[in-house]
Amino acid sequence: MIPLQVDPNVVAQGVNYVWILVVSFLIFFMQPGFALLEAGQVRAKNVGNVLMKNMTDWALGVLVYFVVGAGVATIVGGLTSPGGFDVAAAFSYIGDSGAWIDWLFGAVFAMTAATIVSGAVAERMDFRAYVVFAATITGFIYPVVQGLTWSGGLLSGSGYLGAALGVGYLDFAGATVVHMCGGVAGLVGAKMVGPRKGRFGASGESQPIPGHSMLLAVLGTLILAFGWYGFNVGTQATVLATTESGGLEFMGAALGRVALVTTLGMGAGAVAAMVVSTNYQGKPDPLWMANGLLAGLVAVTGAVPHVTWWGGLVLGALGGAIVLPAYRWTVDSLKIDDVCGVFAVHGVAGAVGTALIPVFAVGGFSATQLVMQVAGVGIIALWTIVASAVVFAAAGTVFGLRVSEEEELEGLDIGEHGVSVYPEFIGESGPDRGVGTRAATDGGNDVRTDGGNDVRTDGGNDVRTDGGNDVRTDGGNDVRTDGGNDVRTDGDVVGDNGVAVTEGNDSAAVDGGENQ
Amino acid sequence: MIPLQVDPNVVAQGVNYVWILVVSFLIFFMQPGFALLEAGQVRAKNVGNVLMKNMTDWALGVLVYFVVGAGVATIVGGLTSPGGFDVAAAFSYIGDSGAWIDWLFGAVFAMTAATIVSGAVAERMDFRAYVVFAATITGFIYPVVQGLTWSGGLLSGSGYLGAALGVGYLDFAGATVVHMCGGVAGLVGAKMVGPRKGRFGASGESQPIPGHSMLLAVLGTLILAFGWYGFNVGTQATVLATTESGGLEFMGAALGRVALVTTLGMGAGAVAAMVVSTNYQGKPDPLWMANGLLAGLVAVTGAVPHVTWWGGLVLGALGGAIVLPAYRWTVDSLKIDDVCGVFAVHGVAGAVGTALIPVFAVGGFSATQLVMQVAGVGIIALWTIVASAVVFAAAGTVFGLRVSEEEELEGLDIGEHGVSVYPEFIGESGPDRGVGTRAATDGGNDVRTDGGNDVRTDGGNDVRTDGGNDVRTDGGNDVRTDGGNDVRTDGDVVGDNGVAVTEGNDSAAVDGGENQ
Amino acid sequence: MIPLQVDPNVVAQGVNYVWILVVSFLIFFMQPGFALLEAGQVRAKNVGNVLMKNMTDWALGVLVYFVVGAGVATIVGGLTSPGGFDVAAAFSYIGDSGAWIDWLFGAVFAMTAATIVSGAVAERMDFRAYVVFAATITGFIYPVVQGLTWSGGLLSGSGYLGAALGVGYLDFAGATVVHMCGGVAGLVGAKMVGPRKGRFGASGESQPIPGHSMLLAVLGTLILAFGWYGFNVGTQATVLATTESGGLEFMGAALGRVALVTTLGMGAGAVAAMVVSTNYQGKPDPLWMANGLLAGLVAVTGAVPHVTWWGGLVLGALGGAIVLPAYRWTVDSLKIDDVCGVFAVHGVAGAVGTALIPVFAVGGFSATQLVMQVAGVGIIALWTIVASAVVFAAAGTVFGLRVSEEEELEGLDIGEHGVSVYPEFIGESGPDRGVGTRAATDGGNDVRTDGGNDVRTDGGNDVRTDGGNDVRTDGGNDVRTDGGNDVRTDGDVVGDNGVAVTEGNDSAAVDGGENQ
Repeated sequence: MIPLQVDPNVVAQGVNYVWILVVSFLIFFMQPGFALLEAGQVRAKNVGNVLMKNMTDWALGVLVYFVVGAGVATIVGGLTSPGGFDVAAAFSYIGDSGAWIDWLFGAVFAMTAATIVSGAVAERMDFRAYVVFAATITGFIYPVVQGLTWSGGLLSGSGYLGAALGVGYLDFAGATVVHMCGGVAGLVGAKMVGPRKGRFGASGESQPIPGHSMLLAVLGTLILAFGWYGFNVGTQATVLATTESGGLEFMGAALGRVALVTTLGMGAGAVAAMVVSTNYQGKPDPLWMANGLLAGLVAVTGAVPHVTWWGGLVLGALGGAIVLPAYRWTVDSLKIDDVCGVFAVHGVAGAVGTALIPVFAVGGFSATQLVMQVAGVGIIALWTIVASAVVFAAAGTVFGLRVSEEEELEGLDIGEHGVSVYPEFIGESGPDRGVGTRAATDGGNDVRTDGGNDVRTDGGNDVRTDGGNDVRTDGGNDVRTDGGNDVRTDGDVVGDNGVAVTEGNDSAAVDGGENQ
Repeated sequence: MIPLQVDPNVVAQGVNYVWILVVSFLIFFMQPGFALLEAGQVRAKNVGNVLMKNMTDWALGVLVYFVVGAGVATIVGGLTSPGGFDVAAAFSYIGDSGAWIDWLFGAVFAMTAATIVSGAVAERMDFRAYVVFAATITGFIYPVVQGLTWSGGLLSGSGYLGAALGVGYLDFAGATVVHMCGGVAGLVGAKMVGPRKGRFGASGESQPIPGHSMLLAVLGTLILAFGWYGFNVGTQATVLATTESGGLEFMGAALGRVALVTTLGMGAGAVAAMVVSTNYQGKPDPLWMANGLLAGLVAVTGAVPHVTWWGGLVLGALGGAIVLPAYRWTVDSLKIDDVCGVFAVHGVAGAVGTALIPVFAVGGFSATQLVMQVAGVGIIALWTIVASAVVFAAAGTVFGLRVSEEEELEGLDIGEHGVSVYPEFIGESGPDRGVGTRAATDGGNDVRTDGGNDVRTDGGNDVRTDGGNDVRTDGGNDVRTDGGNDVRTDGDVVGDNGVAVTEGNDSAAVDGGENQ
Repeated sequence: MIPLQVDPNVVAQGVNYVWILVVSFLIFFMQPGFALLEAGQVRAKNVGNVLMKNMTDWALGVLVYFVVGAGVATIVGGLTSPGGFDVAAAFSYIGDSGAWIDWLFGAVFAMTAATIVSGAVAERMDFRAYVVFAATITGFIYPVVQGLTWSGGLLSGSGYLGAALGVGYLDFAGATVVHMCGGVAGLVGAKMVGPRKGRFGASGESQPIPGHSMLLAVLGTLILAFGWYGFNVGTQATVLATTESGGLEFMGAALGRVALVTTLGMGAGAVAAMVVSTNYQGKPDPLWMANGLLAGLVAVTGAVPHVTWWGGLVLGALGGAIVLPAYRWTVDSLKIDDVCGVFAVHGVAGAVGTALIPVFAVGGFSATQLVMQVAGVGIIALWTIVASAVVFAAAGTVFGLRVSEEEELEGLDIGEHGVSVYPEFIGESGPDRGVGTRAATDGGNDVRTDGGNDVRTDGGNDVRTDGGNDVRTDGGNDVRTDGGNDVRTDGDVVGDNGVAVTEGNDSAAVDGGENQ
């Protein structure tokens, strides 16, 4: 056996980077998780807009974060610590293929912060304004927070405040750096764009607008939990560490603590939210259990390597327990229409869980650390509020933050994108179909209630109760109870009242409509 | 180059634990797989209840398995083998962060057994009774099975029976320890809770109640198959083994056999079920092909490292071929309404595949092994039947196993959780809406057929054909063909018969109803 | 510390094969990605058929590829290169468990090519004909392409053409070997089976038939992107390479380049398609952004380790930009009804991205390489066209390529499989329900517009507007506006016009129908 003439660092690199690549892919997979969580909580007529915003967060975000964002974080780290900075060095990663795995690992965290925001402003924000914000949060707002913390800036042990206090800010995987940043930015956006039409009654009372598919929201939640194992446990990026003596050390205990506390926090958050929603609403609510599971995860995300297992369980339970009350406060007191409750789930749970790390720390309580935690939460929140408000205001000035009332009623899918996501179930269908006119060629059954005119060429059956005019060329069955006029050119002898007496198997229409 | 002064164990730990962590995350991802598989096979009015039960299995299950379950398994292992046991040692993992990755790896298997059960008892079991069972199967019923087998107890080589026979029970990744345990417990629950209303005709003939989305069921199946690669191949947890001579050995052949037999078993199971369902129903059925794919996976899960590749192909095909006949036997002979066929997919395929391991063993046939396999299947099944019956009976006594007939008809989403999962497509919507009264504020189009009264404030269009009374304050369009009374307070001059002649674009209502 | 007496190859094997196994699982997960992408783009009445074809691609495909396909590739490699071949050696993997992980790694690429085809021929191809093609592409058509390229054949550096030109064909992860092969085969199939009824108007103008769920299509896209990280980065299968000096080298730069170019290509493709679709249709279209994301990925899949990061960005953007124009050309000029645009996404983007590798090569431009790239694209496309045409023609001769017009109108779910995927939303339900007669026993709300007769025993509410006759035995509410006859045997006193005045809460039926 040839004595192994290898550098232990190489072995460690091999193991560590297989781990880092796989967890980066898992964290990317949180993008469809967030898209489903949000799509499920909006009405069918706005699902396409949600999908568009979530794809844009990622597609545009990675380009911006590569060309600008990652460099800005390093510069801010240097600016807010004695270390100083060098612009060329800050952007050196762009030409260094050896740095590109680390860049991807950083990018998937940045994109997570960005995609949280869309959940708060859904169903009424202008798509162009949103794109401006998505580019800015990935190019500037989030990178500043990353600079202040993970890139050695102000709040880190080597930053001005960290050096002054003698302790660095603890937020292991981004409960505040990523989630609170996204949650607070979302709250600011929801406030500035205003509530959806009908969300609050005349006297300001909350009138919930249920999403079109709780199934999608819970599926999104469980996909997020799957990706979150990459988010939390993956941030323990060192599996094999090289020791001073030239050997290797397996970081099993650290990995184990992060994996366990993530699991217990998730479980406790979901169970706590089940209990609290039963208390609030009389019955355990699946959507609140899902939000509790997420809030439990957010609450422990900053704490996972730092706290005891029972501390993680308590923090998770706390996150899950406060998510519904925090949402109610957002809606009933602040009167802010945060559609997916992102402030409650990501903002409040992230802040509370990260501030309380010292209370449950494995190494015991430290008042200084508590001071730093509270200061860190405050500084990140303040920066995010100010920066988001400025960017939303600017985007609003250029494009207008909100779509028109008419478009909001019709749905952003048609208004912003000219599409219907579920043409056979609800609403208009297909880009060729202008508003009001609908050339259904899909053989699907139409239940029309919008007065639009149908041009049917696909044998699909129509139940018309809205006075719209049909042009039938396909022998499909028409049932008219609405006085609408039928124009049939499919060989049917059109009797009175829209009854096609020959080919099509039409029932009597009792609507007195004229048919040619 | 510094000669590597490292302990080969450390290198092996690094490689092996990256593998164990990633496969644990994959096995967790089977939770949404099971949730979709079940949600797709129930009616829309019960999907929220399915999601709630699946989230509870995991969230509550991990807490119970950490505090109780894992320790119980070790104790049972000691109790049923000459080894004896020590309670403190059995629960020592709780305080040992070095043991927490292994705990998570065990927990994801336990949670898989628990979540299978809900598929059998869907659409009529009381949620509180179910929660009791979920806690007990993760805290006691499954851990006993784990103790008897994987934790060195009765059936293992070191257990009383194993020592007596001179062979240990073979079930590599849990075809019976996990899947048959879940499938049998599900059958017991389905039997004790009774069939769904309308499932059997007056003369006991089967009247299938189709699920609301075969797409979700097949998507769940393919997510399960993705996680199953972690379930099976991950159970070959040692990638690099340390040899006696202090070197390392790559377990490529063992990993390769498990990966190949898993793939061929899956494929053969699906193809066999396609052929059998064509034979049974005249046409190849996608849902039975999906169930065959799962049954093929279950059938090889215990066998994967032990059998030849063609043996795995045969076992998989056998699993896929018997799943439909086993389901028909469950329904037509046992008259048990096992909604998702969990007994056929997980119970029967698991038992048959694991019992027949010796027939296809790489090392050749062993009668003693066959005796142990059959004994093992019998003991695990018997324990599961008795324990499940006792727990279901106890839960039934405290809470009643079954929801009321009225609630079953209305749907468990509203009855147990006060929600509707697809408000724009079917049924009630939102927690504020008591049964019968519906304050639709979502702008969605309502097709009301339940006589409930509508309070509309969101401009959504109503097609009322059920005599319910509308209170409209939003200019939305009403089409009344049912004599229902409209109360319009949105500036519309309410003409006779519910025609709002000004703002709202209402068509003539020909229903003679009174409108104020 | 014992000096490590290990073979560096073993350490490298451990690390590399954990990586290869995990990425193989990720690539398998692209199967449900493709299934959702396709299911979302067809009508509800054909979703079951899409699911069936996608499950069959995988289940049958892995069996065929194990028994035949992988061996054929090796033989073709030997046949088209000076190396020659040996049949026994070509199929030696079948008995060698040490080769089975590599086999699985190859199989998941083969299955990807197969499943792309079904997206083009959806909604009208006979299922048996499709199964014949699925078996042939996995057993012969794709393996020949693999042989010509990755298995050392004609186009590789050691192949006849490669040796002649002095350069081997570059297609790192299969932009053309897998994707263009699938896309071209799909185009041939779509051409030979003919367009869907109603897809083109009388004068040949395009009449889009929108899919039933853009949400599923975008979810499928993002699942594909998740698996694609395994597809591209996983093809850099060596994480730790053993050096000549007996040491190990970490391939970080190679892995980093593939990971970065994959990410930038994906992002640029999506953003480019968003811009182009806005230009074409006036508004940014979510489905085209999703297709652009995929086309961006395809375009860089062959190029990822070979090109600069900005080259990857340009290739991705190019792929995303040409996908809509390529689709329009397919439809408007070629008049081919490629339902999911697989030729545009996988064929055109794959060809263009791979042909242009030399233009953006890290090592600089090479005219010879460009010649090889163009020749390779041409040879693969030509082989695929000829072979696919022959197989589709043969399958058509035996089974007929196309389902009947009546079946196409009714939907392939019922015609080919006897099922309805969304019974509560649209269409017939359950295998027991022959066409026209429907024994709804699911308590679901029926909106019947097809004149079929209902036998209701489950309390579900009916809105009948189609003259069909109801037999009610369950107290469910009936609303009749269609003159249909009600036969009520549930204790209701059936008044005139179908009004059950006692138990069932029926509204007045104004249809003059006779009720007993």
